[in-house]
Amino acid sequence: MLTASVCTIGDEILIGQIVDTNSAYIASKLNTIGVKVNHMQSIADDESEIISSLRLAVSKTDIVIVTGGLGPTKDDITKKAIMKMAGSNSLICNGRQLNVIEEICKKRGIELSDLNREQAWVPDNCQVLVNKSGTAPGMMFEIDGCLLFSLPGVPYEMQFLMDGVIEGILEHRKPESIFHKSIITFGIPESSLAKQIEEWENNLPAGVKLAYLPSPLTGVKLRLSIYGSAIENQEKVANELFAALKPVLGNAIYGEGDDTLEKVISAYLNEENSTLSAAESCTGGKISSMLTNNEGASRV
Amino acid sequence: MLTASVCTIGDEILIGQIVDTNSAYIASKLNTIGVKVNHMQSIADDESEIISSLRLAVSKTDIVIVTGGLGPTKDDITKKAIMKMAGSNSLICNGRQLNVIEEICKKRGIELSDLNREQAWVPDNCQVLVNKSGTAPGMMFEIDGCLLFSLPGVPYEMQFLMDGVIEGILEHRKPESIFHKSIITFGIPESSLAKQIEEWENNLPAGVKLAYLPSPLTGVKLRLSIYGSAIENQEKVANELFAALKPVLGNAIYGEGDDTLEKVISAYLNEENSTLSAAESCTGGKISSMLTNNEGASRV
Repeated sequence: MLTASVCTIGDEILIGQIVDTNSAYIASKLNTIGVKVNHMQSIADDESEIISSLRLAVSKTDIVIVTGGLGPTKDDITKKAIMKMAGSNSLICNGRQLNVIEEICKKRGIELSDLNREQAWVPDNCQVLVNKSGTAPGMMFEIDGCLLFSLPGVPYEMQFLMDGVIEGILEHRKPESIFHKSIITFGIPESSLAKQIEEWENNLPAGVKLAYLPSPLTGVKLRLSIYGSAIENQEKVANELFAALKPVLGNAIYGEGDDTLEKVISAYLNEENSTLSAAESCTGGKISSMLTNNEGASRV
Repeated sequence: MLTASVCTIGDEILIGQIVDTNSAYIASKLNTIGVKVNHMQSIADDESEIISSLRLAVSKTDIVIVTGGLGPTKDDITKKAIMKMAGSNSLICNGRQLNVIEEICKKRGIELSDLNREQAWVPDNCQVLVNKSGTAPGMMFEIDGCLLFSLPGVPYEMQFLMDGVIEGILEHRKPESIFHKSIITFGIPESSLAKQIEEWENNLPAGVKLAYLPSPLTGVKLRLSIYGSAIENQEKVANELFAALKPVLGNAIYGEGDDTLEKVISAYLNEENSTLSAAESCTGGKISSMLTNNEGASRV
């Protein structure tokens, strides 16, 4: 199984000023091509911290994705830190990224400064992923057999570059596959649910992992995860396993994947050509609001 | 400076099924009492991963906050893993948590099962933080001089227990203080801004750290962070430093802290008894909607 770790860099994460949403985005993208994320971490803008944390990550997983710390200002030091650990000798100018930077400056009506130009200078031993949505390019290094990608931390720039990351991984490595499927139950507390499906859970085939994800609002989600090629036709296996749960749990199963209670209720009402009235007190119209958030709600 | 690391446990984070919001909440709470978070990580529900990652965290920081993996089902193994690394001998029943569990089951009309009861059993060498908002108690361990707290991963339960964590830290350790202050600028690109304030930045006193936080929608935020007791009266120092920037940046500074463009514009219009009309195309009324999201908007 090809493994990865995700490292987000920036003091703003460590002081709680922002929530790191990059890691979840990257992990779900990697899962779609069969790369399993074993570890995520957030590191301060501190050179020795960055180097020691990334060294450990490189030694433990096949792929490391780094975001953040690539801006033009003094507090951003990721490029310098990675150069030290990747044994880079010098910086060279990437003409394609420089063109993008020039275009962006022109569009915004600002003069091209040295700080802008420096963004196009990259370590001599990396492959560049040109960033058309911003000034800092993505970079791919190969360090001790590990593929390390460094991306900007601004979410839409990182997202723009993730397609190139996926291509880079598929060009240099051969992932197996990963499959996740969830069903959602309502009305049975987590501990009772575990009792009811105990026999089914104990007989899950090797390589299939079950997780319970309880939520007070939506009920308990059950997720099956199948990693690697030991099990062929992962989707079929997951579907059959969940089908075997239906006689046990009956109507408590109300949806799958990202379904929500209100989505399922709306769809049911639409299908049955039925309507629903809500007389709400204390909820401020919350129930109506949740229901009208779905497509076709005007018919309900 | 008292340091901490935050460890969130759960496969749902590592496959990107959920975004970890716990770490940011915990970090901002710790900052308010002068504890600096040096490292955050997310770990899989895997015993050896949990033990090796927590061992490293315990050896590197004064405080470790762990969330997740305390549920009643088989996929949750944090308690077992921590017992091994903390050298616990056995589990003992915590009467106060058992009372809470009994009450919760009664309220929900479900029978108390063994799985529920087991939630009240805790390692013999921990201090219990009773969880009144759920069934899994918080636990405090002292391992090799490090305070390790284990909390449930459900956000509102974790948040409920953080008050007890803060009390526990202040009872056993003496933090110094941390102060952050941000101002927000608009209309100057990050790289030009850095040029304009270069002299000011180069002359910042030791112990004061500057960060640039650019956002395409709201402009560049500048944050000063002051750690430790080397600088007395941190708030005054930060205010004076930012005041010295005003002659340099002028009207480009439009707010501070969590101010937003629309909040500042609304407040200005209210103060001046002025109104604003928006003729919007392509934005779907976005500007009006942003403005009306603020208090007193009906007067604008």
